[in-house]
Amino acid sequence: MSRYPASVIQVIKHFSKLPGIGEKSAERLAMHLLRMPQKEVESLARSIVDMKQKVQLCSLCFGLSDQSVCHICANPARDPRVLCVVEQPADMVCIEKTNAFYGLYHVLHGVLSPMEGVGPENIRFKELIGRIESGEVKEVVIATGTSVEGDTTAVFLAEKLSGFGIIVTRIASGVPVGGDLKYVDPLTLKRAMETRHAI
Amino acid sequence: MSRYPASVIQVIKHFSKLPGIGEKSAERLAMHLLRMPQKEVESLARSIVDMKQKVQLCSLCFGLSDQSVCHICANPARDPRVLCVVEQPADMVCIEKTNAFYGLYHVLHGVLSPMEGVGPENIRFKELIGRIESGEVKEVVIATGTSVEGDTTAVFLAEKLSGFGIIVTRIASGVPVGGDLKYVDPLTLKRAMETRHAI
Repeated sequence: MSRYPASVIQVIKHFSKLPGIGEKSAERLAMHLLRMPQKEVESLARSIVDMKQKVQLCSLCFGLSDQSVCHICANPARDPRVLCVVEQPADMVCIEKTNAFYGLYHVLHGVLSPMEGVGPENIRFKELIGRIESGEVKEVVIATGTSVEGDTTAVFLAEKLSGFGIIVTRIASGVPVGGDLKYVDPLTLKRAMETRHAI
Repeated sequence: MSRYPASVIQVIKHFSKLPGIGEKSAERLAMHLLRMPQKEVESLARSIVDMKQKVQLCSLCFGLSDQSVCHICANPARDPRVLCVVEQPADMVCIEKTNAFYGLYHVLHGVLSPMEGVGPENIRFKELIGRIESGEVKEVVIATGTSVEGDTTAVFLAEKLSGFGIIVTRIASGVPVGGDLKYVDPLTLKRAMETRHAI
């Protein structure tokens, strides 16, 4: 790397700090940028700065937004009585893609992790309670991941929300659609069995 | 993707055009940038624009340079009688890392590829001949890759340079150092056998 001109080294250094990009990939990306038209490279750089300046967290759900209230929270067609709790903004986008949810969201920006010192005060838990206390919510769908931390967070939330007289649900975890049982890991299959439902 | 704010979509679009980055990775990168400190993101963007503006091709070897003549061509300690011909600037950096070459370079910026319509006029061939005609060069080491195109280019160059009364060599190809014969592909092993040398 040190044999490249200084300005190239800067780009390689920056890129190799990004997740999933090692020094080799960073080098290849820099070489690609050098071959790209000047205008396109400038547009790429501008888009990054632009995004960083414009994107904020929605003041209601803490999802990503160009405005102070995101387009989902601002949409009168969405049902404010159902709140889906997710870990990260990207999870919210995943659920939106399914077209299977018409309520509102609440992004925690993290999960509880005693190991890493992440407690309720480090995620948007207080804000969730605030939204529920304001009264309109009838159901909270917990859609945190199915990692140990995601499950722990789900159990914690279910417990804390039990006193509010609302329904608390958890998205199902089990055999993927189109999946063959023999390719499903035992833990997932175990849970699919435990959470079986009448058909 | 369409569920993200417009400025985030722009960044995802730009990133997913880069080599080796699919839409999923682009999404993850954008999310990472949003979590990064503003200053660092701006520094990343600036480094890209800066590189694009500063880096030029060395007027002698066509390697990457911050100046009109690169630090290798400008170094009086390098031997101008030996010229190593490579495909791309990154190859030059690879060879520099070995500390095994003390001559100068010549970057072709491509390889001959009749299939893709790349002829000698599309690579820095004319410039290579120009450098040899100017007289100082005694040996040309052809270090193009060992793909079909790399080999074709090597044979073409060897032929064209045969009339100049200089030595034309090709870097060896064969078993990697530390490599076990049973992990080497037959073609490589065949070539290692054909180009065997006295010890």
